[in-house]
Amino acid sequence: MSDYAGLTEAIYSDGAMLALFSGAGTVRQMLVVEAALANAQAQCGVIPPEAARIIHAVCHDGDAVDILDLQAIATGAALAGNIAIPFVKQLTAAVARVDPEAARYVHWGATSQDILDTALVLQIRQAIAQWDRDLRSTAQACARLTAAHRETLMVGRTWLQHALPTTFGAKTAGWLEALERSRQRLLLDGAQMALLQFGGAAGTLASLGADAPRVARALAGELGLALPSMPWHTHRDRLANLAATLGVLVGTMGKIARDVSLMAQTEVGELREPAGPGRGGSSTMPHKRNPVGCAAILAAAVRVPPLVSTMLSGMIQEHERALGGWQAEWDVMPQIAALAGGALRHLLGVLDGLEVDEQRMAQNLAATNGLILAEAYALALGGRIGRGHAHDLIEQASREAVKKHCALKDAVREAVHNDAATRGMLNDAELDRLSDPANYIGEAPALCDRVLADWQAGQDAENAR
Amino acid sequence: MSDYAGLTEAIYSDGAMLALFSGAGTVRQMLVVEAALANAQAQCGVIPPEAARIIHAVCHDGDAVDILDLQAIATGAALAGNIAIPFVKQLTAAVARVDPEAARYVHWGATSQDILDTALVLQIRQAIAQWDRDLRSTAQACARLTAAHRETLMVGRTWLQHALPTTFGAKTAGWLEALERSRQRLLLDGAQMALLQFGGAAGTLASLGADAPRVARALAGELGLALPSMPWHTHRDRLANLAATLGVLVGTMGKIARDVSLMAQTEVGELREPAGPGRGGSSTMPHKRNPVGCAAILAAAVRVPPLVSTMLSGMIQEHERALGGWQAEWDVMPQIAALAGGALRHLLGVLDGLEVDEQRMAQNLAATNGLILAEAYALALGGRIGRGHAHDLIEQASREAVKKHCALKDAVREAVHNDAATRGMLNDAELDRLSDPANYIGEAPALCDRVLADWQAGQDAENAR
Amino acid sequence: MSDYAGLTEAIYSDGAMLALFSGAGTVRQMLVVEAALANAQAQCGVIPPEAARIIHAVCHDGDAVDILDLQAIATGAALAGNIAIPFVKQLTAAVARVDPEAARYVHWGATSQDILDTALVLQIRQAIAQWDRDLRSTAQACARLTAAHRETLMVGRTWLQHALPTTFGAKTAGWLEALERSRQRLLLDGAQMALLQFGGAAGTLASLGADAPRVARALAGELGLALPSMPWHTHRDRLANLAATLGVLVGTMGKIARDVSLMAQTEVGELREPAGPGRGGSSTMPHKRNPVGCAAILAAAVRVPPLVSTMLSGMIQEHERALGGWQAEWDVMPQIAALAGGALRHLLGVLDGLEVDEQRMAQNLAATNGLILAEAYALALGGRIGRGHAHDLIEQASREAVKKHCALKDAVREAVHNDAATRGMLNDAELDRLSDPANYIGEAPALCDRVLADWQAGQDAENAR
Amino acid sequence: MSDYAGLTEAIYSDGAMLALFSGAGTVRQMLVVEAALANAQAQCGVIPPEAARIIHAVCHDGDAVDILDLQAIATGAALAGNIAIPFVKQLTAAVARVDPEAARYVHWGATSQDILDTALVLQIRQAIAQWDRDLRSTAQACARLTAAHRETLMVGRTWLQHALPTTFGAKTAGWLEALERSRQRLLLDGAQMALLQFGGAAGTLASLGADAPRVARALAGELGLALPSMPWHTHRDRLANLAATLGVLVGTMGKIARDVSLMAQTEVGELREPAGPGRGGSSTMPHKRNPVGCAAILAAAVRVPPLVSTMLSGMIQEHERALGGWQAEWDVMPQIAALAGGALRHLLGVLDGLEVDEQRMAQNLAATNGLILAEAYALALGGRIGRGHAHDLIEQASREAVKKHCALKDAVREAVHNDAATRGMLNDAELDRLSDPANYIGEAPALCDRVLADWQAGQDAENAR
Repeated sequence: MSDYAGLTEAIYSDGAMLALFSGAGTVRQMLVVEAALANAQAQCGVIPPEAARIIHAVCHDGDAVDILDLQAIATGAALAGNIAIPFVKQLTAAVARVDPEAARYVHWGATSQDILDTALVLQIRQAIAQWDRDLRSTAQACARLTAAHRETLMVGRTWLQHALPTTFGAKTAGWLEALERSRQRLLLDGAQMALLQFGGAAGTLASLGADAPRVARALAGELGLALPSMPWHTHRDRLANLAATLGVLVGTMGKIARDVSLMAQTEVGELREPAGPGRGGSSTMPHKRNPVGCAAILAAAVRVPPLVSTMLSGMIQEHERALGGWQAEWDVMPQIAALAGGALRHLLGVLDGLEVDEQRMAQNLAATNGLILAEAYALALGGRIGRGHAHDLIEQASREAVKKHCALKDAVREAVHNDAATRGMLNDAELDRLSDPANYIGEAPALCDRVLADWQAGQDAENAR
Repeated sequence: MSDYAGLTEAIYSDGAMLALFSGAGTVRQMLVVEAALANAQAQCGVIPPEAARIIHAVCHDGDAVDILDLQAIATGAALAGNIAIPFVKQLTAAVARVDPEAARYVHWGATSQDILDTALVLQIRQAIAQWDRDLRSTAQACARLTAAHRETLMVGRTWLQHALPTTFGAKTAGWLEALERSRQRLLLDGAQMALLQFGGAAGTLASLGADAPRVARALAGELGLALPSMPWHTHRDRLANLAATLGVLVGTMGKIARDVSLMAQTEVGELREPAGPGRGGSSTMPHKRNPVGCAAILAAAVRVPPLVSTMLSGMIQEHERALGGWQAEWDVMPQIAALAGGALRHLLGVLDGLEVDEQRMAQNLAATNGLILAEAYALALGGRIGRGHAHDLIEQASREAVKKHCALKDAVREAVHNDAATRGMLNDAELDRLSDPANYIGEAPALCDRVLADWQAGQDAENAR
Repeated sequence: MSDYAGLTEAIYSDGAMLALFSGAGTVRQMLVVEAALANAQAQCGVIPPEAARIIHAVCHDGDAVDILDLQAIATGAALAGNIAIPFVKQLTAAVARVDPEAARYVHWGATSQDILDTALVLQIRQAIAQWDRDLRSTAQACARLTAAHRETLMVGRTWLQHALPTTFGAKTAGWLEALERSRQRLLLDGAQMALLQFGGAAGTLASLGADAPRVARALAGELGLALPSMPWHTHRDRLANLAATLGVLVGTMGKIARDVSLMAQTEVGELREPAGPGRGGSSTMPHKRNPVGCAAILAAAVRVPPLVSTMLSGMIQEHERALGGWQAEWDVMPQIAALAGGALRHLLGVLDGLEVDEQRMAQNLAATNGLILAEAYALALGGRIGRGHAHDLIEQASREAVKKHCALKDAVREAVHNDAATRGMLNDAELDRLSDPANYIGEAPALCDRVLADWQAGQDAENAR
Repeated sequence: MSDYAGLTEAIYSDGAMLALFSGAGTVRQMLVVEAALANAQAQCGVIPPEAARIIHAVCHDGDAVDILDLQAIATGAALAGNIAIPFVKQLTAAVARVDPEAARYVHWGATSQDILDTALVLQIRQAIAQWDRDLRSTAQACARLTAAHRETLMVGRTWLQHALPTTFGAKTAGWLEALERSRQRLLLDGAQMALLQFGGAAGTLASLGADAPRVARALAGELGLALPSMPWHTHRDRLANLAATLGVLVGTMGKIARDVSLMAQTEVGELREPAGPGRGGSSTMPHKRNPVGCAAILAAAVRVPPLVSTMLSGMIQEHERALGGWQAEWDVMPQIAALAGGALRHLLGVLDGLEVDEQRMAQNLAATNGLILAEAYALALGGRIGRGHAHDLIEQASREAVKKHCALKDAVREAVHNDAATRGMLNDAELDRLSDPANYIGEAPALCDRVLADWQAGQDAENAR
């Protein structure tokens, strides 16, 4: 087996996800499906109980993957067109070594895609459980930051420019809600994907005759999966939905990583990723601490959207089994899962130990000599002289403040005095109040509280279930 | 205004969707938002009732779009960076022509993105309603086909090769279910998107001071939208989810169009798109009937997945207002909507008048002289001599049948006779039964019934609500 | 005609490109092709000279687009599946109004795609000429910046962290070279695309019999296009290459816009986009100057890559005329052109008036108290005590400097003294030299000179041709 | 190392390409670069010759990859953010085990990206050589088919409908030319990518002081690479161009595979992929021969375009080293190479043993009872009664022929007789001539000859060089 992505994939993915979707991990779930199929068919009297017992035992004998030759499966797959064909051949041989009679009943009545898809469903079920856990932990980290910083003043930035004051908690509250929404959607998609694929060669289960419905039901029961009203060999919408949901999650994580990395710029200095031995160093610049967690997340955010596009394009699957579209999924869905899962682990690492420099936040807020509060002054005047006039007056005062390197407060005082329409407005107490960013953060603390309360209520309800 | 896509977009989109998301359509909804904002603020005592009355009247005076100069908005937008800035300037001027005092209160306390996003939400709400109607009609067409063809025998095809018999109803049942799943998901996403955007310049609503919560609530009420716990200026997951759901819908429609167009090939001849004057003709080949509906759907299925990728990539939105990611959405979300909506209209047209040639279906099923029933023979023997041996024997008989241009039934008869392990098995009655495709369609009719029953129950439940 | 993208497309595209690829612009080139076809056929004696004269006159009568009803073409196209069919119908009617006899020879022997593709080739030829001009101007702006700032010290940044000193000219030299490489490739692709499409319904030109080769040659001559050895109806590699080249150009422009916008951040302040009335203002924050040019470029850089993906996916074109893939190109290629052309205009605007603040560049370089020169110290020691040891010692000194808020120079002096292996190394003169960033910019000025010389030589050679 | 794509990647990629871009393959080239760097620096007197000798020896000692612990590199990379940092650490330790003094000079003055990018360049150089060979072989297969089938009549198909006759050679001539164009472009891109990356931490080579230019020149010489005028750490256009060129190649291969697989459909039966033991069999349907080569190519054609989109999106690389965009390339460029290389091997296999059924081609041509020659009749009349009238008359006759199940020839005879404008035209000899498809293939054989001659001349010229 090659490992062409082997070294770098360790940077961007997480070990558990890679193992789950590895060649061995896939074969492991295929064995689970074949064992369950034999059991179900024995239950329904379709194959002899003894055959099922033996098949089941071979499939579950220690790490049964070891009885198979993965390299030979890969080689056979290159000729056969999918891995299930050489897999079934090997499994049959392995069963035959125990009991040739039992070997007759391996993979009975199933088609390659039944096994491959159901194994994928089992992998996804495990992955969803991990993502759920990791997303809860990440949300908790966001909740802690939100609670701690509901009033920590900082610059709100639009178009990469200072805009207005806000609080750091308001920012992390947005992260928290978006991550929680993705978690909910993942759970929903997970529930919709937890269903059996079982249709035989053309989706009719003709190979099982009248036994088909009972076998299908028993097999779904064995695996704890729902039984769909019909096979979904070439209807991949549920899978594509899940891929898209992971794409949206990665997008949200990319937004957070972009925010963190921008705030971690040397000139901004408001945040730093957690430190650690060997973490984020440079081979030539000993003083650097690179935001390696953010880099991994952002790389995932570049890579995953086009992979989701692949899953959507791949949906054009011909007739009862596709030529190209299904095959395109095989490496892509695991990559999406690995990249999303890896980015999530990185995000958890970044947020759990995030270093917040409140002092730099305050310094940056003060860096423009009050310009950031221009809107506050404009609104204070706007109620009296109209939005347009006030906007123009403050825009002019802002330019003066920049030119003279003075505080906006002073430039406003002068402008108000010089304009006939405003003379006498805004006394010194008013100007002082207007020049304190703490007085112009609006709803920021309140929305932190609201978000935290909603989230806590949701957690409580979920735990109570 | 340019119309660089003007001629071809009529092929791939539908008029209602194009009008809804056109420049004029967008401005129309922006006027609705500004009018509602003025009303809400008057309700809360933030602006004078008379000002609100006048603003509202100007925004709703006939087709108020006519009072604005769209070309000037476009020109101004190129400088300002978004269309809301020149729009507000023009609206303010229009109000000022009625009452300069009222003009002071236009767009009070809002930011450009509040108006743009909320207008988009209103457009989406209308679009969802149209898609819901069209998807119901399309599902009905599928249901009719499924009921009519639950036992219409045809070839099941895998890897573009004949595989096993199935029924045409089984195929259309799959279409029906997939379309219905997309409809459900669209309704879900629509419900989640029906929410106000209102945060002011940095998402804190500082400009409204203590009045902010009440104004926000009143504004949401005016527009019939939900009030989110916080602004979502740079958290676009709900919008990206909707885009992805449309992408999945287009993928399903692409699958159906691929199926139809393959079955409409001259050599296959099982289906034809409905005819009509000027429809699908060729400028040089008078005998042709091109599947133009399928072409439009398939073109959408090529175009939409990368556009969904854009929406996902665009989610990396900086801080409190993005530089690039948000701006990338502006034309892309309307394109996704227009392409999905247009493809849906085409699909409805294709399915509503679809010509089904049951005779050709039967001929194609017979074209391989029984090879398509190889599995039936293999299974009939497999229970007695093992799957592997049976598979080999039938594979060999299939090759003989091809070589000798004889029916598979005859080749099997001979092979069974020649093999010591099988001699005496499969008498003529058995061979006759095995060679009739109607005896090897398994669950196909039953799953048609199940799908129809489920769908009908769902419709009934929905109508009862 | 709808204008669903009408308002925002003015922000992201440029007028000339939008007009060129508009519905009217497309029809204009189709008329050019039909006129040339008539001429060529008359030359070859295939149609009567008088018919050709009349067809040509109708096609070139003023702005002949006005004789056609674009709305009717759009409506007809929705039924026919492409715009050429209703276009030919209308053109034939227009000619018939002059001379019914001549009308018989309109579009003689051609297929829809011949006209559509050749018209596209003509549009592309015009677009390439504009891009060439704009890229030359943009390169000149980069060259001016490079010459002016070959020694302007600034921070080199890696992973969004301060790394080492460099010069602003070194940065703009990189921009210059990359843009010039894209220009060269566009000219190459343009040359390869300047070729006739002419094959008739199935690419055999059977409709013209023995006259086919001569007519094809004459038609290519009329239009100044190369004659390919065979039609390329379903081989779109040349078009896809061009789309990809535009994608790469947009990628390079996106890199430049990212750099500029990061340097324009309030906290960095090294660059500002040019100011201008109505440009980059905020509706609520009068002091802001938003980098609207960069936003437009970055939005294009989000949108174009997936559109290139569409052009590549669309290459899977069936047999002699595609079902879906070709149709997908129709709006997408114009969008790529419009977005690339618009981004280029924005880039030209940004670079031509770019405000460079050398003082802020110097301040930022000094902001870390010398940490940015850590490598200089490490290398000075590395030659004597080995890279690893030196790296560790300086890493430690860097940490001390941060902790004690002192200059790195002083921390290094102390560390060198305290380490037995280095004691006595690096005297004060050496430390002073090492602490001046101007002494650690390596090849930066030289590579500016090299790049400028290469570029100038290339321009001279091109002008001499 | 995980192998999450391990089993299926064997289906879609080829072993040589996977090995070249594997973790081990990458590290192998990194060792080549480090060895060359030491040599170059010794030549220039920057490091001691003895140190260079030892470093070189360690890097080239057998398969030096074995001296490194790839698993540890992967683990270290997850912390450090790239694989070069732990790689250099391990290489330094390996050299130190031989000579601690020499170990001081490992990786001297270079940055991680210098090594990673130059190693990638070396990998690409090898890959280009393989692609060149494989593309030549594939073109030869196409040339053989073109020569053999220049007059083999078959159906030309548009919109998946029968259109006009053509020859199979005309189809393969199109494949040949498109593949050859991709080969030329790959060679061009390969030449432009064969260049050194060497700039140190911020692209200034400050770490090498005045020696920098000589060392860079010597290093380029050691590796046989061109020396760029400046580093290209964050200017990835050349790499993106190569990725796009591979994308276009895959698009062309996808078009060919779509054509082959459509012609291999059971109902069409004109082509079959070569047979072979274990190749294309079905686990349940013994008679099937699945087009597994086409499936692999088509899957690549679904997967590669979005990966090209990633490479383009990834070009937005910040300042002197990117955060996200560069990192996104690491797995994606190898995947593009592996998928393109694998698809090419599959295509070679498909075309080399392609089974062509000329009889089925002829049968399909006859299947519509002459309708496919409708244009021939229409043109024969068009010259006398005008294109429009002739088109209508033949369209009507075509409908009659379909309705009456008669030959188009007979329907035309009757229609011509019944129409006053045409009565007496088209005598029986003319009708016979018009009804023979061999008389209506136009330029098809001639263009085969032209394409073959051009290709042969190109090959000769290339071999003469």
